[in-house]
Amino acid sequence: ATATLAAPAIAQSSPEVRWRLTSSFPKSLDTIYGSAEEMANIVREMTDGKFNIQVFPAGEIVPGPQALDAVQSNTVEANHTCSYYFVGKDPTFAIGTAIPFGMNARQQNAWLYEGGGNEVLNEFYATYGVIGVPGGNTGVQMGGWWRKEVNSLADVQGVKMRIAGIAGQVMAKLGAVPQQIPGGDIYPSLEKGTIDAAEWVGPYDDEKLGFHQVAKFYYYPGFWESGPTLHFMFNAQKHAELPKAYQAALKAGCAYANDITMAKYDAKNRLAIRSLVGKGVQLRPFPRDVLDAAYVASQELYAGLVQTNENWKKVYEPWKQFRDESFQWFRVAEYTMDSYNYAMQASGK
Amino acid sequence: ATATLAAPAIAQSSPEVRWRLTSSFPKSLDTIYGSAEEMANIVREMTDGKFNIQVFPAGEIVPGPQALDAVQSNTVEANHTCSYYFVGKDPTFAIGTAIPFGMNARQQNAWLYEGGGNEVLNEFYATYGVIGVPGGNTGVQMGGWWRKEVNSLADVQGVKMRIAGIAGQVMAKLGAVPQQIPGGDIYPSLEKGTIDAAEWVGPYDDEKLGFHQVAKFYYYPGFWESGPTLHFMFNAQKHAELPKAYQAALKAGCAYANDITMAKYDAKNRLAIRSLVGKGVQLRPFPRDVLDAAYVASQELYAGLVQTNENWKKVYEPWKQFRDESFQWFRVAEYTMDSYNYAMQASGK
Repeated sequence: ATATLAAPAIAQSSPEVRWRLTSSFPKSLDTIYGSAEEMANIVREMTDGKFNIQVFPAGEIVPGPQALDAVQSNTVEANHTCSYYFVGKDPTFAIGTAIPFGMNARQQNAWLYEGGGNEVLNEFYATYGVIGVPGGNTGVQMGGWWRKEVNSLADVQGVKMRIAGIAGQVMAKLGAVPQQIPGGDIYPSLEKGTIDAAEWVGPYDDEKLGFHQVAKFYYYPGFWESGPTLHFMFNAQKHAELPKAYQAALKAGCAYANDITMAKYDAKNRLAIRSLVGKGVQLRPFPRDVLDAAYVASQELYAGLVQTNENWKKVYEPWKQFRDESFQWFRVAEYTMDSYNYAMQASGK
Repeated sequence: ATATLAAPAIAQSSPEVRWRLTSSFPKSLDTIYGSAEEMANIVREMTDGKFNIQVFPAGEIVPGPQALDAVQSNTVEANHTCSYYFVGKDPTFAIGTAIPFGMNARQQNAWLYEGGGNEVLNEFYATYGVIGVPGGNTGVQMGGWWRKEVNSLADVQGVKMRIAGIAGQVMAKLGAVPQQIPGGDIYPSLEKGTIDAAEWVGPYDDEKLGFHQVAKFYYYPGFWESGPTLHFMFNAQKHAELPKAYQAALKAGCAYANDITMAKYDAKNRLAIRSLVGKGVQLRPFPRDVLDAAYVASQELYAGLVQTNENWKKVYEPWKQFRDESFQWFRVAEYTMDSYNYAMQASGK
């Protein structure tokens, strides 16, 4: 405040701006909650403390799932969330994060930044009065913790699984019974056997919640989240009112968080998976017939939405084209390189 | 300048700072040259034009390979380059970019940002008076353009190939004859048959230089560059003299460029590979015995350097551990997901 009094001439270009950001995540998820703090911190540093974004964990201002409403109504200026939490309003929100059998993190990021993804998503987000900017990625998530082994599609029948959104719809088509349970209730529900399986994030976040103590089998891959992008969302009018320099600081700060969060997950999951295996966790790939049934169910769902939902059609169709073209290219150099390197390492060379 | 005169009170916290950055790349490589411009532009926007970094293409101030000397001697304050261009000074520089059979882009980025990589590299870079910050990645490069088909390791014998650095040493161990040729001379050399093969970058950059018109076979993967990181390097003293806010702007600006450059390569290569195949280019995977021989040659080289070069040992050993642990984790969820998605797409589903 002293600086402002001393230098009124700069009031217009560098005003003191205070924003509040509601995270959809608890502080205990340090990686993903930390993403918003990384962004806020670097924006504060870049502006000599003048653009000050205060980060609140889920529940302090509004519950996690209300992060969009809170920004739309200008209760807070910003959030950090998963776009797919809002599929109840419109399934199109899912494409901003991840849909089953979608792109991996790099491909989704390329679509967003350089394939028209941010633009087409923001045309959609604009109808809710918000602007969305990528803010991190977890990489492929795990397929969750299962109390019983899944040897074929038949073993999925009747399984009560904690899984939400479009992923839940796909699992329902496979015969599972999707349950919506907040993160904090998963452990006791699994322990009591109220549910038979639960998906959360990946090794690092999962280990902290201790699921390995109540469900032995850890499946992969989480085919419903092959490269889920987190988003920062800003109230569009509040964003427009920012000085251009602060808009740029926000843009760079989000990219910084985007980059760092992916790096954190990749670094931390690499250690957590070793730790979990050391604790006796049984890693299992999903059987092929489960993946195939889920793939077919997903495509049916998408085809139906193209027919019935104009927003979905506008976002999904260019996304799908980018996905298919990306897969063709990645199969050439990236996949061949990964395959060779992983095979050599697996053989102890 | 007017603003500065009108508001002398802010002179200390927001001084006018002009830096020059020498890129190691020509303007024609718009993706990679553009990375420095993206960084400079966003830093300029964030600071209301007060921190102004002017970007020069290779050759305007110093030639590309002298980008380190220029920053060390403070001829310019900054560069944008590949650390491995400086292996003539010390092979340890290669690890900052890529060494054969190294990590992919995401894994290398995780090592740099969250695995101690930036720290251990900067202890080494500090002996040259510079600070290095990641500034983009090309993804796995291609294995170059070959005039004759390579059906086995025998076909590599005597091949005059444009390839430099540690990669060149590995190819030499396989019986090839590495040639150091500037980018602009590759096309005529291949056309005349002065060389038999040449590696450059990947589909997008390669197509612009027209190599497909003079060499029919396009090999993959470029096993010597599985996730090459570009670097911004700053004169350490000049960096220390910056206001803290400008240091933060630089940090965020580099992360922005890091993120965007990877996205650009992924988006542009996906179209260029289709275009090249449409022009009749023959895509070929390297035969297994070529990869195996190169793998063994690389490991021998690294083991030798651990014995003889203290800098190499300090950087390589933690890098190698991170690599091995990353491969183990990525084999679980990421690779299984990619494998399934690519297989489904290849089968037309």
